[in-house]
Amino acid sequence: MLRFLTAGESHGRALVTVLDGMPAGLRVDAEKINFQLRRRQAGHGRGGRMRIETDKAEIVSGLRRGVTLGSPLGIRIVNRDFRIEQMPSVTCPRPGHADLAGLLKYGLGDIRDVLERASARETAARVASGSVCRILLEYFGMKFTSRVLKVGGETNPGKFDAVIDKAREDRDTVGGVFEVVVAGVPAGLGSYAQYDKRLNAGLAAVLVSIPGVKAVEFGLGFGYADKPGSECHDPVYYARSRGYFRKSNNAGGIEGGISNGEEIVLRACMKPICTLLKPLDSVNINTKRSAKAAVERSDIAVVEAAGVVAEAVTACVLAGAFLDKFGGDCLEDINSAYRGYLKRIRK
Amino acid sequence: MLRFLTAGESHGRALVTVLDGMPAGLRVDAEKINFQLRRRQAGHGRGGRMRIETDKAEIVSGLRRGVTLGSPLGIRIVNRDFRIEQMPSVTCPRPGHADLAGLLKYGLGDIRDVLERASARETAARVASGSVCRILLEYFGMKFTSRVLKVGGETNPGKFDAVIDKAREDRDTVGGVFEVVVAGVPAGLGSYAQYDKRLNAGLAAVLVSIPGVKAVEFGLGFGYADKPGSECHDPVYYARSRGYFRKSNNAGGIEGGISNGEEIVLRACMKPICTLLKPLDSVNINTKRSAKAAVERSDIAVVEAAGVVAEAVTACVLAGAFLDKFGGDCLEDINSAYRGYLKRIRK
Amino acid sequence: MLRFLTAGESHGRALVTVLDGMPAGLRVDAEKINFQLRRRQAGHGRGGRMRIETDKAEIVSGLRRGVTLGSPLGIRIVNRDFRIEQMPSVTCPRPGHADLAGLLKYGLGDIRDVLERASARETAARVASGSVCRILLEYFGMKFTSRVLKVGGETNPGKFDAVIDKAREDRDTVGGVFEVVVAGVPAGLGSYAQYDKRLNAGLAAVLVSIPGVKAVEFGLGFGYADKPGSECHDPVYYARSRGYFRKSNNAGGIEGGISNGEEIVLRACMKPICTLLKPLDSVNINTKRSAKAAVERSDIAVVEAAGVVAEAVTACVLAGAFLDKFGGDCLEDINSAYRGYLKRIRK
Amino acid sequence: MLRFLTAGESHGRALVTVLDGMPAGLRVDAEKINFQLRRRQAGHGRGGRMRIETDKAEIVSGLRRGVTLGSPLGIRIVNRDFRIEQMPSVTCPRPGHADLAGLLKYGLGDIRDVLERASARETAARVASGSVCRILLEYFGMKFTSRVLKVGGETNPGKFDAVIDKAREDRDTVGGVFEVVVAGVPAGLGSYAQYDKRLNAGLAAVLVSIPGVKAVEFGLGFGYADKPGSECHDPVYYARSRGYFRKSNNAGGIEGGISNGEEIVLRACMKPICTLLKPLDSVNINTKRSAKAAVERSDIAVVEAAGVVAEAVTACVLAGAFLDKFGGDCLEDINSAYRGYLKRIRK
Repeated sequence: MLRFLTAGESHGRALVTVLDGMPAGLRVDAEKINFQLRRRQAGHGRGGRMRIETDKAEIVSGLRRGVTLGSPLGIRIVNRDFRIEQMPSVTCPRPGHADLAGLLKYGLGDIRDVLERASARETAARVASGSVCRILLEYFGMKFTSRVLKVGGETNPGKFDAVIDKAREDRDTVGGVFEVVVAGVPAGLGSYAQYDKRLNAGLAAVLVSIPGVKAVEFGLGFGYADKPGSECHDPVYYARSRGYFRKSNNAGGIEGGISNGEEIVLRACMKPICTLLKPLDSVNINTKRSAKAAVERSDIAVVEAAGVVAEAVTACVLAGAFLDKFGGDCLEDINSAYRGYLKRIRK
Repeated sequence: MLRFLTAGESHGRALVTVLDGMPAGLRVDAEKINFQLRRRQAGHGRGGRMRIETDKAEIVSGLRRGVTLGSPLGIRIVNRDFRIEQMPSVTCPRPGHADLAGLLKYGLGDIRDVLERASARETAARVASGSVCRILLEYFGMKFTSRVLKVGGETNPGKFDAVIDKAREDRDTVGGVFEVVVAGVPAGLGSYAQYDKRLNAGLAAVLVSIPGVKAVEFGLGFGYADKPGSECHDPVYYARSRGYFRKSNNAGGIEGGISNGEEIVLRACMKPICTLLKPLDSVNINTKRSAKAAVERSDIAVVEAAGVVAEAVTACVLAGAFLDKFGGDCLEDINSAYRGYLKRIRK
Repeated sequence: MLRFLTAGESHGRALVTVLDGMPAGLRVDAEKINFQLRRRQAGHGRGGRMRIETDKAEIVSGLRRGVTLGSPLGIRIVNRDFRIEQMPSVTCPRPGHADLAGLLKYGLGDIRDVLERASARETAARVASGSVCRILLEYFGMKFTSRVLKVGGETNPGKFDAVIDKAREDRDTVGGVFEVVVAGVPAGLGSYAQYDKRLNAGLAAVLVSIPGVKAVEFGLGFGYADKPGSECHDPVYYARSRGYFRKSNNAGGIEGGISNGEEIVLRACMKPICTLLKPLDSVNINTKRSAKAAVERSDIAVVEAAGVVAEAVTACVLAGAFLDKFGGDCLEDINSAYRGYLKRIRK
Repeated sequence: MLRFLTAGESHGRALVTVLDGMPAGLRVDAEKINFQLRRRQAGHGRGGRMRIETDKAEIVSGLRRGVTLGSPLGIRIVNRDFRIEQMPSVTCPRPGHADLAGLLKYGLGDIRDVLERASARETAARVASGSVCRILLEYFGMKFTSRVLKVGGETNPGKFDAVIDKAREDRDTVGGVFEVVVAGVPAGLGSYAQYDKRLNAGLAAVLVSIPGVKAVEFGLGFGYADKPGSECHDPVYYARSRGYFRKSNNAGGIEGGISNGEEIVLRACMKPICTLLKPLDSVNINTKRSAKAAVERSDIAVVEAAGVVAEAVTACVLAGAFLDKFGGDCLEDINSAYRGYLKRIRK
């Protein structure tokens, strides 16, 4: 069983993640994690914070001489901008953010106490754990990519930067749609046997758990509502050289809650950043009078970064399903189980 | 902690579900469960099976004199059409179904052994457990509804039946989009504190775990990609009589992974049924030669039924979050915690 | 991930268990489950209930033609003595039983509503799920046995019946100690990597979860407090023919939370049955006046039966650890992973 | 749901723990954690490592101005003796330790890669998380203590140091028995409703998960095997001033898997340390020839320290059950639920 937790506030001392259940024998290069952390910080439309932080993963445990021990990986990302204790109170909840609901739920008196954890900065920790999962899956031939499909209503990639620049001028923000594709996923991950083991259930959960993601779809997704069954399922073929295969991939690589051997394709929609320089109507939580929402330093658009986070959490779910299927103690045993399985299903 | 498992094959002896963690003191009327089971079986476009089965929940445990004991509820739904042992082998996987991936994963020799469990008939068991959760939440003032928004590309409800009839004539199937709305949800369910506690993560997981659901969105959903931040977040207001409130609900009742006190609104897309009377290309798993996919007795459209299942699984997730927040042993204690909380957040 | 839930009251309609996560391809003979259910009901000292019930497992799902499908097994055991609705209220809690604490916790007004679920009858459902796990492990060469070591202070097996008969005459009850031994367990199940993955942690939990079990020990157990380190650890040897081995087994087959290839040996103490024909002091929950505890039909001694239940729950934990290690989808793949592993660790 | 993970090797950079699910509003004084960390390091019989390390908890997240935010607490304990990369290989497994089984399981070539995580040093991280749980429970009036009952066969506390000194002279080690008592636990924690929710199951699991603990018992424990039922259960009394109570506590505060309002009393046996200066027979893993087991710097006796760890993990389990029962978001709400409950069960 692969699992991970994260901890850490946006302006706290550090972000931390513990990733439990990685097999022994995997070479983990911290630079590969840092590369993903940098990708997460990049993209047109990022704000000032990203210039302050240059996230670096300090692997605290679970490795010796660069190779996993089978014990949990603890990873720390220090916050350069550590000043949570000194930061001012926030009194006007930002619509769209956890500010108000968190305040009520936790009985807090300062919105700062909500937003510090609800902040998307936490996703740096997920990218750290996810990058380790990705290294495992890349070892077994999987390949992760993501790309932005739409920003602020625009679908022409050549115009994304302009849309973002325009939003910045307008002191506004924009959301968008991104796509994640994973190639090299073997048929057989996930299961229909129990509802919570379906691969798409796990993926949908981690996708919408990314702050700001409000929608997710697999393959044709919402497009399935517009086509008859005869035109949208993927006929099955067989060739001796490659076993069963498809010529189309409307299913996005998952049928009946199980990977079917084709590329996993999912898309998600990230809403516009909730912190606006032209703040929306809100209420002062102390006086209960109308007021403008708080303004925190923030980004204009993070669709591209959200795609990077999505790759990472997708890797976490796939790695979990992969280890469930092929056992999980050391790379040598997993490799042998994996090769044996591929041989069996191709014969 | 609320949890449930289901068991049962489509033509097996019975479906079974065990729902663990319901508090004591709740009156559970089996007729309310049966009402939901009937709703699940209804809708234009259902096939012959629905005429054979009239699902009835037999509550095996967890109740005495109609009231929950705090012990797990075991619920059984007998299959009238119990003949799994005699049913013929299936040799040509249906594209879109778990048939092929399940066969490979589990090393089976007969697709029948896959489809019996992967069948959507399993959702009757989820509706049973979900209906109990719903009774709990209705006691606390929540209200669940669902409706079909689109069928086979058509968005005019007046034409849904015609679209389905046309598909039947064409020996084809159609999918569609449904919406679930839950009113009366208090602010504060779910959390941003850890990724897997976000309310939308739990909801997205159970929604896409419904066989055939390929997409899910909350509130504006994919529509967030087309609007600037200044136009899509929901400004916050306050009135003494009702506490904090919103005049819009683009967020679909969830901000930062937490219910915000507005209606929870989610939509999902159900793909067209994969069993086609005009079967798609497939492969005979024994000869590996091209063949037409298997034809099983099936439905033409199940979007409406999927909405009913979605209400049920939504209730499971909300009930879990509700009990996590307000403790979980007996109705009296929960009620007292709930009233106290509402009072606190409204002051 | 292997998991199971049970449901069912002592005089309810039936007991039910759902066992999720068993691999496909395993032949499961219901008679083997029934054999364990009969063993659970036997033993000198059992009361009248055991003459009423002859537990039989009805496998509701998860099998076709006697072989597992990879889908969850639902098992039902009908209660002949189904009359929970008519049974009289119980007003005086029995010391030692859940009666009083359960009443308070769940806010109930009738102790009947507690004892029906807290009853050890529930263990029949665990034996059902555990027997399926055992069939899996027996397939891989494990062997489960249990025996009674002490009854009512007596350690000579030849006198156990007499001790029990004497207790019956005295209208009293007796407890005792039993031992479970599992042979054929490979080295490597469980892990020190995280506290909750230790094999002994899982075993201790399910052992003391058997109603009445108040103590558990592995190998030398409490005896370790009396010996120096130089005399109680098990030296390691190696022979080409068998790989690493030990000549002693003080550790009871587990070191550092991992099975070490020797027999797993654990012992547990079952307290005397709490229902006494000479009832202890108690309090009437309605009047709050002193009164004698309730008298329910019951047993005199159940140490032997507890050993049977212990075998079953031990099998559940070992099967879970086994499937975690060797993957879990079908017998063929597991067998191949298992053989490969044994070869690796013996070389 | 309260949960925690730990990470960290004995001579790694640091130990880390993430504790997820603590409510908001609790004042957490790092000094209280450090006090427990110091207690864990103390006790007659500790070796040189304890003089090198003076464990200090650095709370990385989850607090602001000393008060919990409802977000996860990340705690780091830096290892002064950080030199895992330079440490020599270990080739001869120590009997009693995870050395051999871990080597086989994880396919490692150096026992160092096992023992670094299997080391009891990891328990410092558990003490850190457990101390936070303890602060919560102390706020609600619980009180934790532990004491040593036996060391190396000796039950007279006045002679414990002498027994340890003697073992040191003999270049040997000794184990012993310790007891944990928790006062102020309300009736109603844990449940008989499902086997894995029994309070004693959770406690037994974490107790034997402490490295070296081989036995655990509640109340009379194994002593129940020697007494008739009429003499070992705890009669129930009632007084207006205190509600239900007992005059004896053979049950150790738990009946039917639920706390009954009396003190929780458990005992556990810690085996002698496995690292011996007079090493036992072992095998060189490279040559497969007989050899003496490895000698690592180590302790002579750690029974007292094990008691401190046991207090901490006991606090984790009780805090989890407490939050399950009384909800878990903020101290104010929990307090109100708790007071209401006490009032209800005492009336």
